[in-house]
Amino acid sequence: MQLLKPFSFCVVALTFGVVVAGCRSSASTQSESQILIDTDAAFARAAVASGTARAFRKYAAPDAMALPQGANPVRGRDQIFQSMLPDSGQLTWTPRGADLSKSGDLGYTWGEYQYRAFETNGIGAIRYGKYLTIWKKQPDHSWRFVTDIGNSSPPPK
Amino acid sequence: MQLLKPFSFCVVALTFGVVVAGCRSSASTQSESQILIDTDAAFARAAVASGTARAFRKYAAPDAMALPQGANPVRGRDQIFQSMLPDSGQLTWTPRGADLSKSGDLGYTWGEYQYRAFETNGIGAIRYGKYLTIWKKQPDHSWRFVTDIGNSSPPPK
Repeated sequence: MQLLKPFSFCVVALTFGVVVAGCRSSASTQSESQILIDTDAAFARAAVASGTARAFRKYAAPDAMALPQGANPVRGRDQIFQSMLPDSGQLTWTPRGADLSKSGDLGYTWGEYQYRAFETNGIGAIRYGKYLTIWKKQPDHSWRFVTDIGNSSPPPK
Repeated sequence: MQLLKPFSFCVVALTFGVVVAGCRSSASTQSESQILIDTDAAFARAAVASGTARAFRKYAAPDAMALPQGANPVRGRDQIFQSMLPDSGQLTWTPRGADLSKSGDLGYTWGEYQYRAFETNGIGAIRYGKYLTIWKKQPDHSWRFVTDIGNSSPPPK
């Protein structure tokens, strides 16, 4: 294998340095914030698979806070879990956007949700809304939400 | 002035390095996130002084998104401003908490708001709620919100 000439090496090193510096100084790239989209999507799948309350308990940081519409703030993972019992409907959601800090420790997702209440006749009205979730990397490097809020939207046209 | 001996210099340098590393690896301190509390409080004062719509235009990033209760997402600073006209009431709020990324470029505040509709008889019912606002440091180092959402709360007891 032919060794790079010193000049070529400098060009390569300089290019690499510029690329690295560019990545570090710019806002988080789409691929970096994709980790939050993926985490939020996994959270949504868990809500379908094991119920909303259990999914929130799994993805909440210990000191998480929920800000539910029409109610006061709920502080703490266990308190959030208790406040969501019994699961009275099926909450599904889809993340639409995300951003991550340059340091990669704090970010957010937002998206749209649908809520279908369980009813005895099996036919529940669907309610629509949107949400904003703050994610914080935990000491074990997992992502857990620290704050979550949602509100109602009109039905899609 | 006496020069530091090489050993002393190493101890000083090492100590400084540990202190710096410690600062970088810990979560943001309360004093660091206080900048977001202060910015949000100034935002709230601007809403009282010059109206909600103008204050939102002043503190929104150009590509900001609002997620208003009962409505669809509103994207863009100018669109947010337009959506809030005419100011039909007085919105006041108080930040209650904040957190900032280690890199100091992204963070959030949350708090409680009161909304009093302007009515012809001068007596408007107060509506209560809470909010979550994402803040991002702009290229000129100012803090502007990039996402804002709120929802209703019960009246205080």
